[in-house]
Amino acid sequence: MSINFKELANKYETPYYVYDFDYITSKYNELKGAFKARKSLVAYAVKANSNLSVIKHLASLGAGADCVSIGEVKRALKVGIAPYKIIFSGVGKIDSEIKEALTLGILMINVESDAELNRVEQIAKELDVVARISVRVNPNIDPQTHPYISTGLHENKFGVDIDTAKRMYIQCKNSQHLEPTGVHLHIGSQLTELQPIKESVKIVADLVKNLAAIKIELSFFDVGGGLGIVYDDEKLIDTNEYAQSILECLFGLDITVICEPGRFLVGNSGVFVTKVLYEKVNGNKRFVIVDGAMNDLLRPSLYNAYHKVEVLNDNQEFSECNLVGPVCESGDFFAKDVKLPKTQHNDLVAIYSAGAYCFTMASNYNTRGKVAEIAYENNKHRLIRKRESFEDIIALEEEYIK
Amino acid sequence: MSINFKELANKYETPYYVYDFDYITSKYNELKGAFKARKSLVAYAVKANSNLSVIKHLASLGAGADCVSIGEVKRALKVGIAPYKIIFSGVGKIDSEIKEALTLGILMINVESDAELNRVEQIAKELDVVARISVRVNPNIDPQTHPYISTGLHENKFGVDIDTAKRMYIQCKNSQHLEPTGVHLHIGSQLTELQPIKESVKIVADLVKNLAAIKIELSFFDVGGGLGIVYDDEKLIDTNEYAQSILECLFGLDITVICEPGRFLVGNSGVFVTKVLYEKVNGNKRFVIVDGAMNDLLRPSLYNAYHKVEVLNDNQEFSECNLVGPVCESGDFFAKDVKLPKTQHNDLVAIYSAGAYCFTMASNYNTRGKVAEIAYENNKHRLIRKRESFEDIIALEEEYIK
Repeated sequence: MSINFKELANKYETPYYVYDFDYITSKYNELKGAFKARKSLVAYAVKANSNLSVIKHLASLGAGADCVSIGEVKRALKVGIAPYKIIFSGVGKIDSEIKEALTLGILMINVESDAELNRVEQIAKELDVVARISVRVNPNIDPQTHPYISTGLHENKFGVDIDTAKRMYIQCKNSQHLEPTGVHLHIGSQLTELQPIKESVKIVADLVKNLAAIKIELSFFDVGGGLGIVYDDEKLIDTNEYAQSILECLFGLDITVICEPGRFLVGNSGVFVTKVLYEKVNGNKRFVIVDGAMNDLLRPSLYNAYHKVEVLNDNQEFSECNLVGPVCESGDFFAKDVKLPKTQHNDLVAIYSAGAYCFTMASNYNTRGKVAEIAYENNKHRLIRKRESFEDIIALEEEYIK
Repeated sequence: MSINFKELANKYETPYYVYDFDYITSKYNELKGAFKARKSLVAYAVKANSNLSVIKHLASLGAGADCVSIGEVKRALKVGIAPYKIIFSGVGKIDSEIKEALTLGILMINVESDAELNRVEQIAKELDVVARISVRVNPNIDPQTHPYISTGLHENKFGVDIDTAKRMYIQCKNSQHLEPTGVHLHIGSQLTELQPIKESVKIVADLVKNLAAIKIELSFFDVGGGLGIVYDDEKLIDTNEYAQSILECLFGLDITVICEPGRFLVGNSGVFVTKVLYEKVNGNKRFVIVDGAMNDLLRPSLYNAYHKVEVLNDNQEFSECNLVGPVCESGDFFAKDVKLPKTQHNDLVAIYSAGAYCFTMASNYNTRGKVAEIAYENNKHRLIRKRESFEDIIALEEEYIK
């Protein structure tokens, strides 16, 4: 990445997020290319980074969208993703969301419980339409052998077991208002091992074959997302091996593969840039205090997640410190016990791997406005989200003061 | 609380927050009354719940404001709190914030490091004004005996030690642009033991006496906030005992007491009300899925915090379940392994103690709009923040799509 963070700080002020759109292009092409032996759809997981310009960029490359709220569906449509490339997923869909999704005619609704299927059927009946259905299967891969998997177990809220899924497909087949269209699995995020993915896809592919035997023919096999990225020194799954092992499991099935990458496409495209306010020493502890905070980037605080950080100065005097923000919580930190050079007021600090699940989780805690977002493409930068002002923050409550 | 949650759900839809303003009044009066033997200022910690109508209500009772960003200062001013009742605290103040605070002429700036004091002095000099200064002292109360204290230790980023504080006051006295005005401590939040508070106040009161001996006379003694509330079955500090033990430490000092309650005033005024979408069973696990989520109320997910939950139906068939939201994260839950009655679609669920650090930490994760906020006062309800629409969410990025 050859982005001049200082130039951007001068133009847009700090803190800001910048995303390298060329990097996103290369990751998209890498994944799409790996599936070239098959009909495939790369449906971008909008929740990872839902800036309209980011989605638009992926749309221009041919991506579809995996959405988990009607708001995300609207984002995808807004930037020109065709309805037939849009999937609506998620464990808890509100009646009004189901209604709108059916009216908009998206590719399919990804259903996660029989109770939800009944709601969708009821609403499709009221609207007199046919709802295209995909069922999310929870393959219950043993956590003892793969403890890093966080969503593919029965103890999680996600998906249904194989038997329930089968019953749900039969319900679809027998309903005038439901059409069995796809199958879905997603066993977790930031996956770095291939084996559990293979096992899960195998289980679900067997289901598809069993359904075909009773004349339920599905058109889409959605393998979910979850491909890991390098935050620190993770060894990743090779993208071609990943695709190959999925395609092997699907041998003999005439079905379109869908994958739903989020973090994989955008995670390492992004950098959060913040400015040093002061240093202080409490007891034996050195603190570098910056103008960005947990409300801007929550992952360290929420998941104790690691992000590589770098002070952008030439100082060679390194010592251990905590890199913290101005929010009044001990949990407001970006890095703990990390070696950083001595800093001066206004030095910039880059926090890497900030393209996914960072801005999307930003809040206005401590009445701090959401920061600016910038796109970097073809050696040019441009604003893609304006920094939030005090007036923006209070806009929805001001009129009610009495 | 006699709020008719169903009536509010029908009128304002779900999810919503409702705050009982009469409860806030009673808590304010309880605390203000406990300090009646002294000149005192109850400076509401705006970060706990920064809705303009909530602040306005406290302002009408006579409260000042403890603010941790210039945005919070502006909120306080916006609803009519006089500048001389406003304190600006926080470990990381941006130059522009310091400048604005000095221009607005608030009571004092609460300084947390010598580096920060230097910045304030520099900016006051540039503006040719005198900055009224309070220093936040970190009393370093032993965590071995009081492990629940989270901000009063040297290993935290907050405040400065006694010796540094003393040097900083001397710097103030010797500067044409700084005026030593107050002293501040705050050892943590949700405190339920009196002893560490007493010890800390004692340490800081000694500092005030030592400063007086060298002709540095402070006018305000800010004991911070942190008084606990009942989430579950906590035994609380008696408010009168609390005030009494502080006043005892200050015996002989002609100084105004400031306290900065946040959670104490508003925490149990608030209820988050959400609606059941579905129930599902995965393996042996029952899940009740509601339309509210971690983006609306983050405390369970972020702190593993307990909130009492109640399903508002008459069903007597209780069984264990997880109460979860629609967000695509295993961390999206309100309660785990809790006994709740069997529910129906559209049953309401109340999540209690949701007046502090709940709405203020809300995000738009999964493109979910922030929910409505409602005031309940004198048996009447009124909207105090409009539910955020899709158009509101994308307003700052829409114009940049290209």
